[in-house]
Amino acid sequence: MEVQAVDYLAEERGKAAFDVEAMKVVWAGSRHSLEVSDRMARLVASDPVFQKDTRTMLGRKELFNNTLRKAAHAWKRINELRLTEEEAQKLRNFVDEPSYVDLHWGMFIPAIKGQGTDEQQNKWLTLAYKMQIIGCYAQTELGHGSNVQGLETTATFDPKSDEFVIHSPTLTSSKWWPGGLGKVSTHAVVYARLITDGQDHGVHGFIVQLRSLDDHSPLPGITVGDIGTKFGNGAYNTMDNGVLQFDHVRIPRDQMLMRLSKVTREGKYLHSDVPRQLVYGTMVYVRQTIVADASIALSRAVCIAVRYSAIRRQFGSQDGRPESQVIDYKTQQNRLFPLLASAYAFRFVGEWLKWLYADVMQRLQASDFSTLSEAHACTAGLKSLTTSITADGIEECRKLCGGHGYLCSSGLPELFAVYVPSCTYEGDNVVLLLQVARFLVKTVSRLGSGKKPLGTTAYMGRVEHLMQCRSDVRKAEDWLNPSAILEAFEARAIRMAVSCAQNIGKASSPEEGFSELSADLVEAAVAHCQLIIVSKFIEKVQGDVDGQGVKEQLQILCNIYALSLLHKHLGDFLSTSCITPNQGALANDQLRALYSQLRPNAIALVDAFNYTDHYLGSVLGRYDGNVYPHLYEAALKDPLNDSVVPEGYDAHIKPVLKQRFRVSRL
Amino acid sequence: MEVQAVDYLAEERGKAAFDVEAMKVVWAGSRHSLEVSDRMARLVASDPVFQKDTRTMLGRKELFNNTLRKAAHAWKRINELRLTEEEAQKLRNFVDEPSYVDLHWGMFIPAIKGQGTDEQQNKWLTLAYKMQIIGCYAQTELGHGSNVQGLETTATFDPKSDEFVIHSPTLTSSKWWPGGLGKVSTHAVVYARLITDGQDHGVHGFIVQLRSLDDHSPLPGITVGDIGTKFGNGAYNTMDNGVLQFDHVRIPRDQMLMRLSKVTREGKYLHSDVPRQLVYGTMVYVRQTIVADASIALSRAVCIAVRYSAIRRQFGSQDGRPESQVIDYKTQQNRLFPLLASAYAFRFVGEWLKWLYADVMQRLQASDFSTLSEAHACTAGLKSLTTSITADGIEECRKLCGGHGYLCSSGLPELFAVYVPSCTYEGDNVVLLLQVARFLVKTVSRLGSGKKPLGTTAYMGRVEHLMQCRSDVRKAEDWLNPSAILEAFEARAIRMAVSCAQNIGKASSPEEGFSELSADLVEAAVAHCQLIIVSKFIEKVQGDVDGQGVKEQLQILCNIYALSLLHKHLGDFLSTSCITPNQGALANDQLRALYSQLRPNAIALVDAFNYTDHYLGSVLGRYDGNVYPHLYEAALKDPLNDSVVPEGYDAHIKPVLKQRFRVSRL
Repeated sequence: MEVQAVDYLAEERGKAAFDVEAMKVVWAGSRHSLEVSDRMARLVASDPVFQKDTRTMLGRKELFNNTLRKAAHAWKRINELRLTEEEAQKLRNFVDEPSYVDLHWGMFIPAIKGQGTDEQQNKWLTLAYKMQIIGCYAQTELGHGSNVQGLETTATFDPKSDEFVIHSPTLTSSKWWPGGLGKVSTHAVVYARLITDGQDHGVHGFIVQLRSLDDHSPLPGITVGDIGTKFGNGAYNTMDNGVLQFDHVRIPRDQMLMRLSKVTREGKYLHSDVPRQLVYGTMVYVRQTIVADASIALSRAVCIAVRYSAIRRQFGSQDGRPESQVIDYKTQQNRLFPLLASAYAFRFVGEWLKWLYADVMQRLQASDFSTLSEAHACTAGLKSLTTSITADGIEECRKLCGGHGYLCSSGLPELFAVYVPSCTYEGDNVVLLLQVARFLVKTVSRLGSGKKPLGTTAYMGRVEHLMQCRSDVRKAEDWLNPSAILEAFEARAIRMAVSCAQNIGKASSPEEGFSELSADLVEAAVAHCQLIIVSKFIEKVQGDVDGQGVKEQLQILCNIYALSLLHKHLGDFLSTSCITPNQGALANDQLRALYSQLRPNAIALVDAFNYTDHYLGSVLGRYDGNVYPHLYEAALKDPLNDSVVPEGYDAHIKPVLKQRFRVSRL
Repeated sequence: MEVQAVDYLAEERGKAAFDVEAMKVVWAGSRHSLEVSDRMARLVASDPVFQKDTRTMLGRKELFNNTLRKAAHAWKRINELRLTEEEAQKLRNFVDEPSYVDLHWGMFIPAIKGQGTDEQQNKWLTLAYKMQIIGCYAQTELGHGSNVQGLETTATFDPKSDEFVIHSPTLTSSKWWPGGLGKVSTHAVVYARLITDGQDHGVHGFIVQLRSLDDHSPLPGITVGDIGTKFGNGAYNTMDNGVLQFDHVRIPRDQMLMRLSKVTREGKYLHSDVPRQLVYGTMVYVRQTIVADASIALSRAVCIAVRYSAIRRQFGSQDGRPESQVIDYKTQQNRLFPLLASAYAFRFVGEWLKWLYADVMQRLQASDFSTLSEAHACTAGLKSLTTSITADGIEECRKLCGGHGYLCSSGLPELFAVYVPSCTYEGDNVVLLLQVARFLVKTVSRLGSGKKPLGTTAYMGRVEHLMQCRSDVRKAEDWLNPSAILEAFEARAIRMAVSCAQNIGKASSPEEGFSELSADLVEAAVAHCQLIIVSKFIEKVQGDVDGQGVKEQLQILCNIYALSLLHKHLGDFLSTSCITPNQGALANDQLRALYSQLRPNAIALVDAFNYTDHYLGSVLGRYDGNVYPHLYEAALKDPLNDSVVPEGYDAHIKPVLKQRFRVSRL
């Protein structure tokens, strides 16, 4: 690795009032996790095949080919080094380039695991684990996204041949978006309407081979291709998101995924006795990983913006001294520090979701479905909230880096472009919030029934108190009291939910009311989800935390997270009379004081993420702060700088300057 | 032009309750303006050289070369057709591709006009108007952006040779960002610290030749290149933003722009008697065009999202009927319609700013500087507000198009990437709001002095009433009363400004207080600027508006604009006690009713922008709504679809499938 000749951030690092190494462990979740991540990150960073600093300059084909090369190389290294599953997964993460591999491991294999019978798993997973087949997950269609029940592709059982006929009846039924489909996958889990004997049984999953294992050409009846360029330089253009049409493609009956329901040789459709709720378990799992990824993506952006804000100087020069570091401006802190706090908040709520998933699965196996709808609503809401804030937060960090944030060498444009689809996939964020709202309204309606609300809705059990309580904050520091914060957030959330439920009650029908008030319902759902994150952050801080000064820093971050939300959503808190305007102003005063406490620790708090310069991929976010020479160096690599006089000079510049077509009346 | 075989939006168009052609005139500003725009847009759309549908797939060199080709072709057509200046400018706009031409006409020529003496203008503009020289505007440096006074480049007068020596003393003094600099410009207006006889006179402008007019090679002492890839596909990568270093480059003394101050043959530095305030006139001009551009960019995004929302169907299918159009969902309306209203609001405030600029210039020529600081603050604030909302609004429109909005063929990724630098250039948006805030605090402090506040701050003259008034809204419809809206916005703005001023007064010094409270000051500035836009929209609606039903539609849009802001910033209105929580809820009820009124007119309201499919550049926003076949067609053009089996198959996919390196313990 490169020798670090300078450290322009050394002085900043010296200011930290806490043990950075201990904070690294807190961030990583455990000493073991930190060690593995650190080792894998360095392994990737030191391998020339995994370099990515010219990625944003490549044309589509070159880019895609390079991704294939990296994916193959990663697989080679994983095998050569006999990496464990944990190590292999981290290595793939640090390669940091979307590819077919993500869908193979992250969607194709889990779908077979979750929906395949034991025999099916035995057959297909054996091949998939060795990558003797490569799979993708073909659900969404050109005309159908969030509403899975609207899919048009059909799988019609032909009892004569004991086969399913997979068919795309319309243009809009073309499978559209599946990653890895366009150019690479040999197989797919395809979702299609199951039809037996003229009867439509709804959408089911089928394993379909797409390409020849001999020469990779598409099999008969299959039309497949790439869906074209997507947002941003590099970014998701490394992925072959694909389009797929079936012209009466036949597959054996045993390639329907039959764990939950099956079709017999005679064409009878039967449900198994495996609980269908297991599907929700998978959803909880997938969304939990999305929340964890949100904290990673946001922390990368924040790391870049915090470091560069300490290097960049602007205005405030007096007596010939250097200008002020932009991180010292309150406007910069007011935008940046809540995002830093959010990164930590999302990390901890993600950690808790991991626990929740384990808990849900344990219960499911014991046929206890009591917590499922609460867990489902909670993960849906947290997926929505964390991905929205992260996408906006990355773009905010980019703006906080001023003009240079617009350069691809800042790393931020690509980080944004590659992250932002999370707001849409695995459930559009607004649709998900409406699901949360539906759950909240239902919970409110049952409050009188004596049945106690569970888990993250437990606070609703204290409805009587929360509907009428008044915050007793009298001075700014009172807002440092976790119970003052919690009560305000709980009161706000329940009052918004109750108000929605009451207004729905006034409508001609509940469905009509729900639809008419859906914008308000979304806001109530946000309030509930923010409460979850705040309360999990408080729990984390109140638990055991090792390391000198670490707990104090987390306390500051937690308060910044909560009070900045309170300020941002002041209208909610005031309109529900949870707090008074004066208490709102006091919260704001306290927030400013917290920014001053955070300021000297800011660099160390982003160092605690332990990201390599390779992984960050940002000249502005370099560990050593040596920004300007490297911005220059990065610029020189642009293809346009291959020649001093541009290629188009003779054809398109000279004729202008030499007046070849001057007949104007200008 | 292509024959329109279908119109899937015909039914939507039939619902409109107003004269779309009349609205087109309102949007364009005049019948003449509409006619010229329409003619130029069609001219560009029908010329194959100006096609842009594969732009996002091109590599940097190919892209840049294609831009040079378009720029030369546009110049050729402008000359051949003997276009007027107005026509030429519109043609360039509809080519819709950033290039050196923008800086030549938009910055280089105006700088010489504004800062050059009559002789200088005579000499240089003659060449520039014919494009015998191509110029750019070299101000920002690698280490210096917003703070012009921090620039490091020097221009030292050498009395022996009667020349200036232009020099870049450090790496951070490299000129960095100027558009057109990297590869094309032959000349630049360079900003440098003027030094005579060892004395630093601050930053001044100089005309410097960069490249040979014979062979385009950089002149001795000049190092110049491109600064590399920027955010997004296509987008600003068509522009050669450049880096420039001077090694003691000598220019004749008469190439200093000497309208405001000059250096004599003897090396004496003298001010002319031309008022320096003229510089502010230029700023007002530039920012006025930025506000006009904001309404264009936002309306393009909104047009795409509105049309596609009427085509896209999702959920809500009953009895086998089609799913619901997503535009009918309240959550969609709640995000989309305020942006549609904002596009109109920005259009009208931009129109008013054009008037303001003319007014300011007239006064300047009569040495009346009384309105200058108010006009300066007002344009700074409106630039900030409109560009921020537009950038966020484009991205919101992209999300409102679901997954397909992430495809480059939707047009939205490029629209976002090409627009978003407006938030940073010509004054960072937060820095500008602080300037507005400084002006507001000053205005508040003078309220007792008897001097009446002017123009957009005139309402502050009614401080006594506004500090204590209470809204008398009692039912939802009361919010349709313009004076109810205006008073609430005025009261909120002045109360926030006064509160900031009071809190600053408590600090140890005004500067310290201003700095500590800067986040609050930004919010106060936003409140003031929103009031300006709301009041100009109301004025527009209350003036003469021709066309059946047009005024009614504008009224609805105006109310949506104001009430959606009120809801978004409810915390401001409640914490300053301008309205009660109940009045806030009534505003929200009224807003929902307004959405229902707008809904049938939505398509016609975006048709009124009169954008060609070429200019929109979006498969999703097509006039005929024939989205899906064209999405498919666009996908097929991707370079990855040149071959069915991807180029990398043998090298990087086959070895994986064929287990060339399987020694894993996975």
